[in-house]
Amino acid sequence: MQANLSIPMKNVTIAMLGSGFVADFYMQGLANVNGQEVVANYSRTEARAADFAKRWSVPESSTDLDSLIRRQDIQLFVIALPNEEHLPVSLALSKAGRNQVCTKPLARNAAEAKRMLDIVESAGVFGGYLEDLCYTPKTLKALRMIQSGQLGDITWARSRETHPGPHSAWFWDGNQAGGGAIVDLGCHCIEIVRNFVGKDNRPLEVMCWTDTLVHPIEAEDNGIALIRFESGAIGQFEVSWTFRGGMDLRDEVAGTEGTLWLNHFLRTGFEAFTSGAGGDYVAEKAETASGWLFPVGDEVSELGYVDMFTDMFEAMDEGRQPMETFYDGYVVNAIIDACYRSAESRTWEPVRLDDWRGTGVPRIARSARTHDGKTVIKEETMPDGRRKLILKDEKSGEFTDVVA
Amino acid sequence: MQANLSIPMKNVTIAMLGSGFVADFYMQGLANVNGQEVVANYSRTEARAADFAKRWSVPESSTDLDSLIRRQDIQLFVIALPNEEHLPVSLALSKAGRNQVCTKPLARNAAEAKRMLDIVESAGVFGGYLEDLCYTPKTLKALRMIQSGQLGDITWARSRETHPGPHSAWFWDGNQAGGGAIVDLGCHCIEIVRNFVGKDNRPLEVMCWTDTLVHPIEAEDNGIALIRFESGAIGQFEVSWTFRGGMDLRDEVAGTEGTLWLNHFLRTGFEAFTSGAGGDYVAEKAETASGWLFPVGDEVSELGYVDMFTDMFEAMDEGRQPMETFYDGYVVNAIIDACYRSAESRTWEPVRLDDWRGTGVPRIARSARTHDGKTVIKEETMPDGRRKLILKDEKSGEFTDVVA
Amino acid sequence: MQANLSIPMKNVTIAMLGSGFVADFYMQGLANVNGQEVVANYSRTEARAADFAKRWSVPESSTDLDSLIRRQDIQLFVIALPNEEHLPVSLALSKAGRNQVCTKPLARNAAEAKRMLDIVESAGVFGGYLEDLCYTPKTLKALRMIQSGQLGDITWARSRETHPGPHSAWFWDGNQAGGGAIVDLGCHCIEIVRNFVGKDNRPLEVMCWTDTLVHPIEAEDNGIALIRFESGAIGQFEVSWTFRGGMDLRDEVAGTEGTLWLNHFLRTGFEAFTSGAGGDYVAEKAETASGWLFPVGDEVSELGYVDMFTDMFEAMDEGRQPMETFYDGYVVNAIIDACYRSAESRTWEPVRLDDWRGTGVPRIARSARTHDGKTVIKEETMPDGRRKLILKDEKSGEFTDVVA
Amino acid sequence: MQANLSIPMKNVTIAMLGSGFVADFYMQGLANVNGQEVVANYSRTEARAADFAKRWSVPESSTDLDSLIRRQDIQLFVIALPNEEHLPVSLALSKAGRNQVCTKPLARNAAEAKRMLDIVESAGVFGGYLEDLCYTPKTLKALRMIQSGQLGDITWARSRETHPGPHSAWFWDGNQAGGGAIVDLGCHCIEIVRNFVGKDNRPLEVMCWTDTLVHPIEAEDNGIALIRFESGAIGQFEVSWTFRGGMDLRDEVAGTEGTLWLNHFLRTGFEAFTSGAGGDYVAEKAETASGWLFPVGDEVSELGYVDMFTDMFEAMDEGRQPMETFYDGYVVNAIIDACYRSAESRTWEPVRLDDWRGTGVPRIARSARTHDGKTVIKEETMPDGRRKLILKDEKSGEFTDVVA
Repeated sequence: MQANLSIPMKNVTIAMLGSGFVADFYMQGLANVNGQEVVANYSRTEARAADFAKRWSVPESSTDLDSLIRRQDIQLFVIALPNEEHLPVSLALSKAGRNQVCTKPLARNAAEAKRMLDIVESAGVFGGYLEDLCYTPKTLKALRMIQSGQLGDITWARSRETHPGPHSAWFWDGNQAGGGAIVDLGCHCIEIVRNFVGKDNRPLEVMCWTDTLVHPIEAEDNGIALIRFESGAIGQFEVSWTFRGGMDLRDEVAGTEGTLWLNHFLRTGFEAFTSGAGGDYVAEKAETASGWLFPVGDEVSELGYVDMFTDMFEAMDEGRQPMETFYDGYVVNAIIDACYRSAESRTWEPVRLDDWRGTGVPRIARSARTHDGKTVIKEETMPDGRRKLILKDEKSGEFTDVVA
Repeated sequence: MQANLSIPMKNVTIAMLGSGFVADFYMQGLANVNGQEVVANYSRTEARAADFAKRWSVPESSTDLDSLIRRQDIQLFVIALPNEEHLPVSLALSKAGRNQVCTKPLARNAAEAKRMLDIVESAGVFGGYLEDLCYTPKTLKALRMIQSGQLGDITWARSRETHPGPHSAWFWDGNQAGGGAIVDLGCHCIEIVRNFVGKDNRPLEVMCWTDTLVHPIEAEDNGIALIRFESGAIGQFEVSWTFRGGMDLRDEVAGTEGTLWLNHFLRTGFEAFTSGAGGDYVAEKAETASGWLFPVGDEVSELGYVDMFTDMFEAMDEGRQPMETFYDGYVVNAIIDACYRSAESRTWEPVRLDDWRGTGVPRIARSARTHDGKTVIKEETMPDGRRKLILKDEKSGEFTDVVA
Repeated sequence: MQANLSIPMKNVTIAMLGSGFVADFYMQGLANVNGQEVVANYSRTEARAADFAKRWSVPESSTDLDSLIRRQDIQLFVIALPNEEHLPVSLALSKAGRNQVCTKPLARNAAEAKRMLDIVESAGVFGGYLEDLCYTPKTLKALRMIQSGQLGDITWARSRETHPGPHSAWFWDGNQAGGGAIVDLGCHCIEIVRNFVGKDNRPLEVMCWTDTLVHPIEAEDNGIALIRFESGAIGQFEVSWTFRGGMDLRDEVAGTEGTLWLNHFLRTGFEAFTSGAGGDYVAEKAETASGWLFPVGDEVSELGYVDMFTDMFEAMDEGRQPMETFYDGYVVNAIIDACYRSAESRTWEPVRLDDWRGTGVPRIARSARTHDGKTVIKEETMPDGRRKLILKDEKSGEFTDVVA
Repeated sequence: MQANLSIPMKNVTIAMLGSGFVADFYMQGLANVNGQEVVANYSRTEARAADFAKRWSVPESSTDLDSLIRRQDIQLFVIALPNEEHLPVSLALSKAGRNQVCTKPLARNAAEAKRMLDIVESAGVFGGYLEDLCYTPKTLKALRMIQSGQLGDITWARSRETHPGPHSAWFWDGNQAGGGAIVDLGCHCIEIVRNFVGKDNRPLEVMCWTDTLVHPIEAEDNGIALIRFESGAIGQFEVSWTFRGGMDLRDEVAGTEGTLWLNHFLRTGFEAFTSGAGGDYVAEKAETASGWLFPVGDEVSELGYVDMFTDMFEAMDEGRQPMETFYDGYVVNAIIDACYRSAESRTWEPVRLDDWRGTGVPRIARSARTHDGKTVIKEETMPDGRRKLILKDEKSGEFTDVVA
């Protein structure tokens, strides 16, 4: 993502559909991306549409989605609407032959996502999945390390996203959102985990726990899940709307040759203490305005918005798929569906993927070295520099130590 | 543990049973504890017994366990033997009316542990459970914070212990050990979690995944489990014998009023880079002797050995139970048993506790505040200082925002 | 820097003068900035010029600086040349009425810098100082916190930049560079410190130590300096070409109401361990390719290049001064000059600024609260919640405690 | 310090002289050390003496120092009194032939310290210097790394100790204390630096800045100094009584082969957030009781008190000098004296040591490798794996690159 040439691409004209929290983040992310122009925005109410246009200097705002969709001068539509509207809006766009990118999660469930995917593909239009947290600068570099083999075979990937709960009312309504913290935050974690274990690594089954521990709602405010992949790798995510202390956004990966820890928000090399003096300016998502604070340098860039849109525009330009596609969004929804089934059935549930496109991945290799006819279980260096072997006699089943 | 008076207790005379890795750690821990004296040690072979006695200046060593047990001048026996020997040795000690403390796990399973517990109790002898990681200075202080209410109701506790695998051969043999990484490391994690969520909080059921991903053994080299407690709190542990990068020993706790992160080994405020020059001295458990290293200041103290023995001796002196008892060891084994059953059945398994002594803990409280007749879902401060409420109309089921 | 509108500015056409390490970084930074186009590049040798043009897809390359300077279609010249060439090239550009931005340090000494400044100003052309480390996302946010008063009056600012030494030969030659580690790295630190204590805060005098401890060169490979400002604030920098472990880039600020710690490179929330497997890809500036590594997510953005160029283009567009100007470069050079004089004279040396434009800053306020007619030295909360005052009787000179 | 045998030493009987903040810390430290008993304590007022005895279960308390000194059953006297009393009390103890250990700084200046040293030595009694921060577990391990050569030749050592100011009134009175923050905190830093650069490395001269920036006192509330050693190594310390955010206690060391960072207080692997609920218990020295807090696991052990007293008792037992002696205290006072002279004269001041006992240390070695008859300035690995040399032609003075 970093070695972009400085030759400017021709400007992509964009319509922003939606005017909430995520649309604001998208506008900030776009501001740092070459070769684009948001020419119109849509919101259901005129006041919100106009307010958004003014806030971001968008030349034109509208409450008439249909006529916006018909405009041929707009090259890309950004779906930044509540989850329940993704499917109908995407269908309308595809039918009109319009390129689109959609916020996360792609839909409320895999069935909806599959319809969006199918129609985008049959219409032959561009369909990008705006999974920003897979595009953070740290994640992109971590993926390069993993892909170059520096961690060996991945055995475990953990993604954690927790905070005190979302800012808009509709998130809290399970019907509109399709669920609770898992739909809101787990969709990020799942796709992060998929990237780390490899997208060709089929997710086989899921074990999930959910509960509503603190907030007076129906949807889950806490969830934990394990995802078992065909290589044997295990994915793990933890999501919560009841975390105290800010936003905890961390990923961890273990492999046969190494390990990786990413902290995207609370510990990024910026630490500040203030008595609470001054304070026109408060660090984002901090729960307090005094004491020790942990601001993020450039939140928009660190959360992946800049690199995400850069990839989308380059992909459109080059006629290739972006790193995150509607297909990826569909797989994520299928895993979320399995999570909810498992939380209900209290057992492992298969991930139902009618359409699996991965190439397949072999089982993590177990070492099979021998020494004097015995299996080498472990080799370690002792403090005095000698090598110690732990051996198993496969016939007798006995375990012994040998110092070489 | 810190405000011990400086009045010396009368010396406790000790016999150390065992001469392996953990016995060495115990001797180092004891060296910093007032009022004790290791007067004899036992090992199955004469060479090892004598070597240990010499290494630690123990006046007397023995291979005759029975006669050691009969000696009336020894006031405390430390069981630092492989798991399979805990039960027979403990029974022999109890029958002889001898005080004892036993390394972790207490036994290979709950049935064995229950027998040890019952006989210690019927014999009226002291039975301490040497769960060092519940006694680390950080853990003790974290428990004080939690017990004083600074984190509110605990909703989640995670304990993680991973490293590249144990040093002695018998650990790798599932029959001798009673299992793999869960028996070896999970026993720590489980008891840490129990301390954090409260020991009166009954562990109801367990969901566990295990796999043997890397090493050519039968026992699991990786395991993850969820433990559901009666309050609704969820415990989580991750153990691995395939981690690269040293020993990862971390605990995390979330509550309705706060959060806690403990790092016991890899990030403790000591960071060093070396080209590899010099190097008679290598930091413990580090995988490399050059590059960035993360030593621990005083490993024995940081891992809890000093405070653990101090508590044991004070408890004996004061005629009270120590913080960690044979009963705790039994509960841990019961949870481990449920883990293995769950890994097999692939569903949640109840924790079978014939003997539950907890007082019971209420469900985590969900807030039930109302505003204008609607349920308050969340209250947050906006950047401009105004308060925003997310409300639910319980009749219509509708969610709305209000700025106060 | 974050709330840029998405209205694209008209493209600025740029000539890049130089093809070394810093020019490469500039091209990477520019790639992420809207509204610009590098249309030509210059290098002294044809091979290097062509190679650079090819590497970065620059349409045209040249070894003829004079004709490049005469081209009216180029709107901005980036001086990315060795220090000794800044003055002559800048003079030529100014004479031709051309806008320019110049890499750091502005010149080899204050006299050269003053000439560059004067002629840019008399020519009425744009003169931006490319001090990237004052533009890192963390630094910009830290400045906002400080400017909003969250740290109170700044009492101390430390900037540290150390690594194992520069990559190009000319840096090591004191004559070409104008000095050693202080000219190379100290120029960053000085301007960071100035931003933190406030640019209106006059630097009065400097105390500096330098030595050549490790490398067989004439110039200093280590330097430490204190800078005293008129408010009483003390600046401190440490630079080294002999540091082991990567690049250590940290800033710390203390004020009467708070404190701030920034880590730009070695601890930014990205931690990885690798056995050394794989490894086509090595984290930048790391000394090793195995063991614990600390990559930076997006180095170019984190080191300030993106926000720096954004500010330069916006400033040109808006007809205002950029955050970092030739005047700032001149002040930095004046402080460096004082550093070298002090290292020689071994005493505090005044900072000689013929042209001081700051508004002046008052002395840090000392509290003068009284209690019962005595001066309050300190007030603190005791563990039991009571307030304790330390008081001074100004007549008797006696100090006492009072618990309120 | 860790491999103490478990053979108990015979108990040392101790008198604690003083009942303030540091005496409390000493009692806590002693509680964890084998083989000692505090049998009496002294304070100037009866109320304080009795209160201290009760608080720590000391069998006997007294306000009569002279008769305490005469008691032959007391084997060690701990001088934990204000600075101005160290000399007279030490003299009285030495004249009576009594073993003594003295809190830091040893005296108010080198002249006083020298008298204490001389008389202790001529009396042939034990004289230990209670410099706890040189005994922290991290510092002891860091010293082992350095002494084993893992950092090569030490080029730079920084020690920083800052907090919002001391708790007792007498510290703030320059006359009683002998100075301000430098006497209070700098004494720690100086001896830490001496340990890191090596005690045989003569401190030649000092450059120091002091100011009284915030508090309404005469003594300095901020100070920074550089200490130049005969090897070329530079020591650096920063002390402040105006720091906000808790107690900042960090050391950093750089050498030709490595680097070291120690954080003793604010970042030790224990991080907690609390809304402020509960809160009978507040983390020590934290400025706030809510928000992010950074407790230390076992403050007494982490600050070195346990290992310090262990060394003192073992040294007495073995008839050897402790790691920190009255001589070390004298050197520290001599450096502090030079600091104050330098702050006054505003130039480097020699460290006046009439009695220098170091063996001498050679200058840090500069490499002198050649390649093709040219001096090798630097060798580095390029991203493609090739080795790049920066060379200097000593005849022409020219610098060039060569890729091998």
